[in-house]
Amino acid sequence: MNSCSSLGIGLAGFGTVGSGVWNTLHRNGDLITGRTGGDVRLHVAKILVRDPAKARATTGDVPAELFTTDWNTLVADPAVDIVVELIGGTTDAFDIVAAALRAKKPVVTGNKALLAERGVELFALSREFDTPIHFEAAVAGGIPIIRTVQDSFIGNRILSFSGIINGTSNYILGRMTDAALTFEAALAEAQALGYAEADPALDVNGWDAAHKAILLATLAYGFPIDPKSIHVSGIEQVRPTDIHFAKSLGYVVKLLAVIREHPDGAVELRLQPSFIPKSHILASVHGVFNAVAVHGDAAGESLFYGRGAGQDPTASSAVADLVEAARSLRQTTGHRGFLPYRENGRILPVAETSTAYYVRFDVTDRPGVIAEVAKILADHRIGISGTHSPVNPDNPDAEFLDMVFLLHTCPFGKLQTALDAIEQLDCINSKPVVFRIETLA
Amino acid sequence: MNSCSSLGIGLAGFGTVGSGVWNTLHRNGDLITGRTGGDVRLHVAKILVRDPAKARATTGDVPAELFTTDWNTLVADPAVDIVVELIGGTTDAFDIVAAALRAKKPVVTGNKALLAERGVELFALSREFDTPIHFEAAVAGGIPIIRTVQDSFIGNRILSFSGIINGTSNYILGRMTDAALTFEAALAEAQALGYAEADPALDVNGWDAAHKAILLATLAYGFPIDPKSIHVSGIEQVRPTDIHFAKSLGYVVKLLAVIREHPDGAVELRLQPSFIPKSHILASVHGVFNAVAVHGDAAGESLFYGRGAGQDPTASSAVADLVEAARSLRQTTGHRGFLPYRENGRILPVAETSTAYYVRFDVTDRPGVIAEVAKILADHRIGISGTHSPVNPDNPDAEFLDMVFLLHTCPFGKLQTALDAIEQLDCINSKPVVFRIETLA
Repeated sequence: MNSCSSLGIGLAGFGTVGSGVWNTLHRNGDLITGRTGGDVRLHVAKILVRDPAKARATTGDVPAELFTTDWNTLVADPAVDIVVELIGGTTDAFDIVAAALRAKKPVVTGNKALLAERGVELFALSREFDTPIHFEAAVAGGIPIIRTVQDSFIGNRILSFSGIINGTSNYILGRMTDAALTFEAALAEAQALGYAEADPALDVNGWDAAHKAILLATLAYGFPIDPKSIHVSGIEQVRPTDIHFAKSLGYVVKLLAVIREHPDGAVELRLQPSFIPKSHILASVHGVFNAVAVHGDAAGESLFYGRGAGQDPTASSAVADLVEAARSLRQTTGHRGFLPYRENGRILPVAETSTAYYVRFDVTDRPGVIAEVAKILADHRIGISGTHSPVNPDNPDAEFLDMVFLLHTCPFGKLQTALDAIEQLDCINSKPVVFRIETLA
Repeated sequence: MNSCSSLGIGLAGFGTVGSGVWNTLHRNGDLITGRTGGDVRLHVAKILVRDPAKARATTGDVPAELFTTDWNTLVADPAVDIVVELIGGTTDAFDIVAAALRAKKPVVTGNKALLAERGVELFALSREFDTPIHFEAAVAGGIPIIRTVQDSFIGNRILSFSGIINGTSNYILGRMTDAALTFEAALAEAQALGYAEADPALDVNGWDAAHKAILLATLAYGFPIDPKSIHVSGIEQVRPTDIHFAKSLGYVVKLLAVIREHPDGAVELRLQPSFIPKSHILASVHGVFNAVAVHGDAAGESLFYGRGAGQDPTASSAVADLVEAARSLRQTTGHRGFLPYRENGRILPVAETSTAYYVRFDVTDRPGVIAEVAKILADHRIGISGTHSPVNPDNPDAEFLDMVFLLHTCPFGKLQTALDAIEQLDCINSKPVVFRIETLA
């Protein structure tokens, strides 16, 4: 076995994942070195924290001299060969990653928001300074989906992804399904269990998953994607009645990322609560687990399933990237990190994306309501496959009730136009709620 | 985008997978080059075939001058930078791979038998000549499980694998389950559909899957594994009565690879028809699909699912390896291929492996049979959780019948001893058939 000098890691951020990286390197460092034939030896050289005293208190085994509160010190330290960015956000994190690239220090990050929002600038720096950014930890925790798309499926045109890539929302939807909880009760439970942040906004509004989907699509199709160009809706609007209705029709409700390349090269990318068939393997993804189904033109249908978050799974991905980064320091030309390889590509406007739909209206109950709604749908040539008004057993003569329509496949834009007209009816009391019905071939 | 000279591939073998590699490179070659930032360009420089005239007839678009019938010519050709071995077997294939390594030409192979049987010699050459062997195509077709274990999970101690890694036997068991076919009828159907070879021996006797399991365990634990040290049994002994019985107990029968590291470092590795809980995600792996569940100490529980065989999926893996090999040609020291990193390790003797069991006896029906069998089991301190003698409705008074015992968890060696004693009973007409009952935590 060859010996080699150990490479120094600058750990920017020492929260859950940062200390997970520390633990994993300590637990399995020798194993890693052995598996690389002695080529890669890693140690933590510097740790950026806000408050060293507090960090010391919670992490007894870290020598005090490793801590710094100044990111410039960390990036500039000659003992730091690779920078791991785990502080989150898109401002300081941006500065740290940019400075590391300029210093030709490879970057490992778990920051999906940073890359989805400001990847264009960072990948340009990565190219200019010939220094890779690795981001396996940014998508789906311990599931190696980035490397799979980037390396294992490099010979494939990616026809589609369908993914459950936010564990918090999957947990909440699961509890609404299995325990008939309301959204609010399920969210409170997720928070109590530590599955949801105190501010759960990004988890439940779909944007955490959307950032991940943007990264997957960027990898697969090679061009930068403007977050403003995609359609995202979260799970806040899911009600027990939707869950119940889905179940009775043989579906389950999942927050689904759908990415699909159309024959003309346009990329469909959307993030929405969706009805998926109970028999599909994605319907079996429970709790905080994540899964991504990938369809490659050569590999065919594949699915990757695992823990989408948490200290150790995310650290597992960051450590794999650290080894990759360490190896890249020995490469004489080029790097193994991702770089956009297409100048531009087209995101299909959401108005042009087609599925079947489940639409829930909040209506004032009086004769003729269904006829009025149905007429507008017919005027817009949208087919109805079913309609249903669940009676509230506690109040069978309620004046206001939920009315549900199942609609045949049509472009979302056409549906929107029809719904705008329906909203004008005086019996319709609020904005209709729309979920996609996915066939998931 | 940088430009670079194209690397030449020597394709040894031009059957299903070989022509799949040809097709994939032609279809997606530009995409691959783009994704590598222009670093990797590949072309087929030479093709080894038995009969060039026949190869020409079936593959119209391949220039005649690419074909050769002499593998020495292919390996020695200066236009060949990387050798892809797809001829199968462990003799000529060995010579080709060894010659390529000696010539410092990286090797891509899909030959699981070669590496499982003669990997020790080949990895020694790989080390000596500092030239990698890549073998993603050897295990589970289009599923990137090799790269996952080798690179993505490099920071993980691998606690266990459970895998369905032979599509043919999975198809057969599935048809026996869903269509109540006999083993023979399901096998004939698989052959008619092209899912099973004319000689299906390696598929149904478990050894195709065992070779793959040996490679997975070698990757995970780093030491060479003697195929003679592991326990393999196939699906030839599975009868409709077993399928039926499994179903009634909430199980499905799968040919399962189980690999598990014990606390003392010993590795359990076995390949057997097994009862697995209907609710486990592996029970949903249908038809010719493959899946491998991996439990890493950091990544947690993961599952990788996809097409385990076939032209395009296997070519997808071979092409990913070709890109890796192409990149390795630029690396100044070391290589990214696998090398054993432990001198030796211990395979747990099958006698020491413990599960619950389903045992079927072929008995002569007379009073006292169950008592006699039960007594011997009791003498060996093996607990019985159930026993059952299905009555044949066509012949309720049959003299010979199947008798089934469900047994509590005990070491397989203890069970064997008891079964040896039971076999001596004059009412027992043939060797008992044993399937494992797996809990798959």
